[in-house]
Amino acid sequence: MSASRDACRVNGQPADLVGINDRGLRYGDGVFETLAVVNHEPQLWTRHLERLETGCRRLGLPAPPRDHWHADVAALSLPRFATLRLTATRGEGGRGYAPPAAPQITTITQSGAMPDRPREWWHSGVAVRFCETRLAVQPALAGIKHLNRLEQVLARGEWTDPVVAEGLMESMDGRVMEATSSNLLIDRGDRLCAPATNDCGVEGIMQGWLLDRAATLGAVVERTPIRREDLWQAKGVMLVNSLIGLWPVHSLAGHPLPRSPWVNRLQDEIVQTGAALMPAVVEP
Amino acid sequence: MSASRDACRVNGQPADLVGINDRGLRYGDGVFETLAVVNHEPQLWTRHLERLETGCRRLGLPAPPRDHWHADVAALSLPRFATLRLTATRGEGGRGYAPPAAPQITTITQSGAMPDRPREWWHSGVAVRFCETRLAVQPALAGIKHLNRLEQVLARGEWTDPVVAEGLMESMDGRVMEATSSNLLIDRGDRLCAPATNDCGVEGIMQGWLLDRAATLGAVVERTPIRREDLWQAKGVMLVNSLIGLWPVHSLAGHPLPRSPWVNRLQDEIVQTGAALMPAVVEP
Repeated sequence: MSASRDACRVNGQPADLVGINDRGLRYGDGVFETLAVVNHEPQLWTRHLERLETGCRRLGLPAPPRDHWHADVAALSLPRFATLRLTATRGEGGRGYAPPAAPQITTITQSGAMPDRPREWWHSGVAVRFCETRLAVQPALAGIKHLNRLEQVLARGEWTDPVVAEGLMESMDGRVMEATSSNLLIDRGDRLCAPATNDCGVEGIMQGWLLDRAATLGAVVERTPIRREDLWQAKGVMLVNSLIGLWPVHSLAGHPLPRSPWVNRLQDEIVQTGAALMPAVVEP
Repeated sequence: MSASRDACRVNGQPADLVGINDRGLRYGDGVFETLAVVNHEPQLWTRHLERLETGCRRLGLPAPPRDHWHADVAALSLPRFATLRLTATRGEGGRGYAPPAAPQITTITQSGAMPDRPREWWHSGVAVRFCETRLAVQPALAGIKHLNRLEQVLARGEWTDPVVAEGLMESMDGRVMEATSSNLLIDRGDRLCAPATNDCGVEGIMQGWLLDRAATLGAVVERTPIRREDLWQAKGVMLVNSLIGLWPVHSLAGHPLPRSPWVNRLQDEIVQTGAALMPAVVEP
């Protein structure tokens, strides 16, 4: 995890440090994106920048111009396969929590190694648990990818068994929202669903792209509240994110789940476009 | 706000930078304390360390030994009057959100200037508003002072009028919890109350100390859910924190509030012990 200076830039310059008064560190006052790099190119780039800009707008941060991120990415000379993280914080300044009137945004652009996961997680699927840690209901922060991620840290700290790939998180009022670092797609037979994120959770980029692809392929897609019973009655449950693409869930809390016919179709979409770091993309 | 290296230490050494992979920056994965320095000494020191250690335990962080903080404070040669911030993060490492099994905690100790507020805020009191931004209900994070403070940033960003000293924040379910950077004491005539923080909000150090002092002086003290109508019916409302000590609230959302007889008694307690940066302490 320690940063190699040639793989990261701070405010457009090679660097791997930030000031201790940066509001990103002091308050988690900022947003970030994690992208897959495939064939030297960040994937779903425009969608990620759009969510980052939405997050900036929601937090009242001036979003860095897209040219800034383009220049950073060009300067990094991205490897063929990698991860890329973009971070924007409100920088230094302000009296306590009060945001400064004209913030000097801190930007961080860094590439890193690919996640190393068993091949069978893409093929036969993953075992998933429910987390005890719940997601607070907070419309002011819902949907965006901000730097206040203690709920995810606590939830991911609930298990160390390497056989369990992910943990599902419910909202404080009992809706199934997402996994600690991936989003849900639920095949309900007549429609492909994702949990609504209007008051809780993160709106997933890969999730949104796959819903759009599925719609193009003829699916009825819907963002709607999801409850545990919806998972047990589903034709299949899938975990998706920008790095791993799509994993089918073969078991949930020890109970087997069926495999949706959408698994192969959506994985094919990802592989054909090289949109994520799936084994068939990385080692074709 | 920019850090002067002789007023801050990172991991026990003079420094004002942290790595971009520090989990404090990546996820807000850590805790902090803000203390008053009076006559070169941090005030309510043991109470602040206890809350920090409670926060570490709740987040599953090994708390830095107290000797570490003592050594940092000794090395800083604190000015006669100042603020002091202690921060502990989970350091670098871990795969994504997963906390590392043996984290290398990052500690930051920094002193800063006193807050500069009008003298009359202590004497005649402050004007306070209600914030639109609400505090999410999250028992897993309630009570402790963690680094996920976007709710406070958003709430404090709701106004710029310098006449308004603070904004009150309600929980998502309508209880009055605290102000953006201070805590509440409510004089209900027969008892002195503070909002319960079991599922939301921060347990204030000055607040707890003043409740203990008031109990010693004969008050019945209570932590209990507080609603807006409780404020309107109160004999007086006070804002307290470790830096400012105690401000009486003279008006709330434009409506005058009575002044509690506890204002002078509790301010006297603070001044006699030099527990906060009140004008009578700083310019006696």
